[in-house]
Amino acid sequence: MSSQPQPSFDADQLVRDLALAGRSAQRTLARMDDAAKAAALRAAAAALRSGAAEILDANAQDLAAGEANGLSPAMLDRLKLDEARLEGVASAVETVAALRDPVGDVIDRRTAPAGMELSRVRIPIGLIGIIYESRPNVTADAAALCLRSGNAVLLRGGSEAVHSNRAIHRAFARGLAESGVPAEAIQLLPTQDREAVGAMLRASGLIDMIIPRGGKGLVERVQNDARVPVLAHLDGICHTYIHSAADPEMAVKLALNAKMRRTGICGAMETLLLDAAFPGCIDVVRALLDSGCELRGDARAQALDPRIKPASANDWDTEYLDAVLSVAVVDGLDAALAHIARHSSGHTDAIVTHDNPVAERFLDEVDSAIVMVNASTQFADGGEFGLGAEIGIATGRLHARGPVALEGLTTYKWQVRGRGEARA
Amino acid sequence: MSSQPQPSFDADQLVRDLALAGRSAQRTLARMDDAAKAAALRAAAAALRSGAAEILDANAQDLAAGEANGLSPAMLDRLKLDEARLEGVASAVETVAALRDPVGDVIDRRTAPAGMELSRVRIPIGLIGIIYESRPNVTADAAALCLRSGNAVLLRGGSEAVHSNRAIHRAFARGLAESGVPAEAIQLLPTQDREAVGAMLRASGLIDMIIPRGGKGLVERVQNDARVPVLAHLDGICHTYIHSAADPEMAVKLALNAKMRRTGICGAMETLLLDAAFPGCIDVVRALLDSGCELRGDARAQALDPRIKPASANDWDTEYLDAVLSVAVVDGLDAALAHIARHSSGHTDAIVTHDNPVAERFLDEVDSAIVMVNASTQFADGGEFGLGAEIGIATGRLHARGPVALEGLTTYKWQVRGRGEARA
Repeated sequence: MSSQPQPSFDADQLVRDLALAGRSAQRTLARMDDAAKAAALRAAAAALRSGAAEILDANAQDLAAGEANGLSPAMLDRLKLDEARLEGVASAVETVAALRDPVGDVIDRRTAPAGMELSRVRIPIGLIGIIYESRPNVTADAAALCLRSGNAVLLRGGSEAVHSNRAIHRAFARGLAESGVPAEAIQLLPTQDREAVGAMLRASGLIDMIIPRGGKGLVERVQNDARVPVLAHLDGICHTYIHSAADPEMAVKLALNAKMRRTGICGAMETLLLDAAFPGCIDVVRALLDSGCELRGDARAQALDPRIKPASANDWDTEYLDAVLSVAVVDGLDAALAHIARHSSGHTDAIVTHDNPVAERFLDEVDSAIVMVNASTQFADGGEFGLGAEIGIATGRLHARGPVALEGLTTYKWQVRGRGEARA
Repeated sequence: MSSQPQPSFDADQLVRDLALAGRSAQRTLARMDDAAKAAALRAAAAALRSGAAEILDANAQDLAAGEANGLSPAMLDRLKLDEARLEGVASAVETVAALRDPVGDVIDRRTAPAGMELSRVRIPIGLIGIIYESRPNVTADAAALCLRSGNAVLLRGGSEAVHSNRAIHRAFARGLAESGVPAEAIQLLPTQDREAVGAMLRASGLIDMIIPRGGKGLVERVQNDARVPVLAHLDGICHTYIHSAADPEMAVKLALNAKMRRTGICGAMETLLLDAAFPGCIDVVRALLDSGCELRGDARAQALDPRIKPASANDWDTEYLDAVLSVAVVDGLDAALAHIARHSSGHTDAIVTHDNPVAERFLDEVDSAIVMVNASTQFADGGEFGLGAEIGIATGRLHARGPVALEGLTTYKWQVRGRGEARA
């Protein structure tokens, strides 16, 4: 910020020290059994409850500062904790405590040609960096998921939530302290200096994976600057294609739900593709318009209802996160697939149809992390998938895709058990 | 090379064009069934055989140029093809053709709380970049593994092997042409300009993964500069720990094999840890010295035999790839684990012991891609693991670790089959 040379703050050194401490704690954590990790999380949940007054006080400080700094009502709402929300945070930690631990699972077993027994065994990844914005609940959620899967975590929350994050972290750590988990397993970066974020992104070999949680600006910066592997999604430009053989009632219901249930989540539909041969196009469009959604269509879509505005070229690549939807009329499955291949962000795309071969082609050929038949794209969520929780949704191609929960926070090693075999 | 501004060669544009063509070909490939992909590879193997004269002529050109340029005998040997080696290349392609195709495998299946059926299905990764040095067989090996798993590949071989690589690529492509695989599924970069390597490393979103195959300089450059995920290992600093309860004969046999069978491979042992309580230390050390291996030891190791030279601090972090070995005497399992945690490159580490609890602790606590009990570290190889082949060995923590074959060249997507479910 200043044009003067800065004094002695060395962000790389700070992150290095924290990372080494975290990695060392992780080695202890990796040797803890399932029951001990689960008990530690239940103790953390209890400490969040017993520390409620302190956490809510800290949160009030953040809220007051936020108001003084002119944060938007939406930002203030994301920041705000109250007793009910804090109880939600604590019980989410208990939910994670109750999840099955994937560490130690044998992924496959084989006998080597020379006779050794080979097993691939799930292990924690190591040290996970979480960089997030204004939601203080991420402090506890992310810590719980990382710890449950045997990983240490280095948290860096947003400046707006600094007091809340510190109070949640303190309470969480108090819970863990009673249960043998080393304190350094869960560390909160002690500075809000933005240089420290850069240092985390550069910390290749020290931090094993970074997960950004927040808006597009944050995710974009992390993806562009990180030298550490990143698990994330940038956009959720989700499509629903209403095929000619769609059930008309289901088409209306799923289009409404995919767009309007909550418009601000990454799984919300952003583009509707209507098959020209589907008889119910007008009903779908009317239902959306009547529900208060703004529609922007190509020429053929506009012909369906005069309230539909013209779409610009940009609209097909826009994640509105609002009650706005782009609509195109397409001629058959191949045209829908081509549109999706060109404009999808690889998050979640759906088809509505009763034609099974068409559904299967859609499932095979759409190259997104999640591909759906006859379901709302708003189901793109780890909880809805039955994973119990999620640390995020990934649209990259490697390691983990779609909703990521405990398994995505593990990797594997090969264990080889021989009886003295030497290689010929 | 010149200080003049270069004319119109735009490496980024070239890589972009090739990558887009490769991605488009990959979409066709992804829809080919298993039998068709296998048949295409068998046709490619046949074309390598029928094109032998052309390939060997091209190789002779490379060898002549290499000699003129003063390549070392070892480099010339890596470059050299003859009828037997070319037959090896062709039959390796047939081996890959006979492997089981993992694409389409359902990794797991579950029912969502709201009722939809979820499956995670293996799919190809997309477009793989291979950057390699003087071994022309990589052209066919890598192409075969990528194609078998439904991926397109962009190959960039070393300048020394340019004629050989082009001839192998032409023959391979002729084979594929007869079998419906689009030509752009397997592309060889048409230029040796080093800028093109940089462009591949920058091609985030165009190339999905890069695998470097070659010396440490190459791997280091790729790991440092790539904006695309990289699957690789930099070092193979592999340890063998001879525990006090090791069988003395087995200890000698495995130490000799792990070090001396082939000293230049990444799975060769580079550090021997001898437990002070193991009665056979002197025999192990003598056998290695007598086999022509130079030993560099700490003070306690040096006391075992006067031929052992002193190790410097550097030796514990050195991959010799030669008949040289560092040797330390340690006091028990914990000291061995600590040494390995500090100096291992995370590739392959082994223990020799008949004490089962000790073996299991070693398997659990050593954090390397491959951990072995009572076996030679030289088994660290996809073929020896029964994977049928390997595209490389990875020491990173995400996506795939250890020997990587077809499964490591796949990712997955979630397929969701609903009956009209909307999210509440």
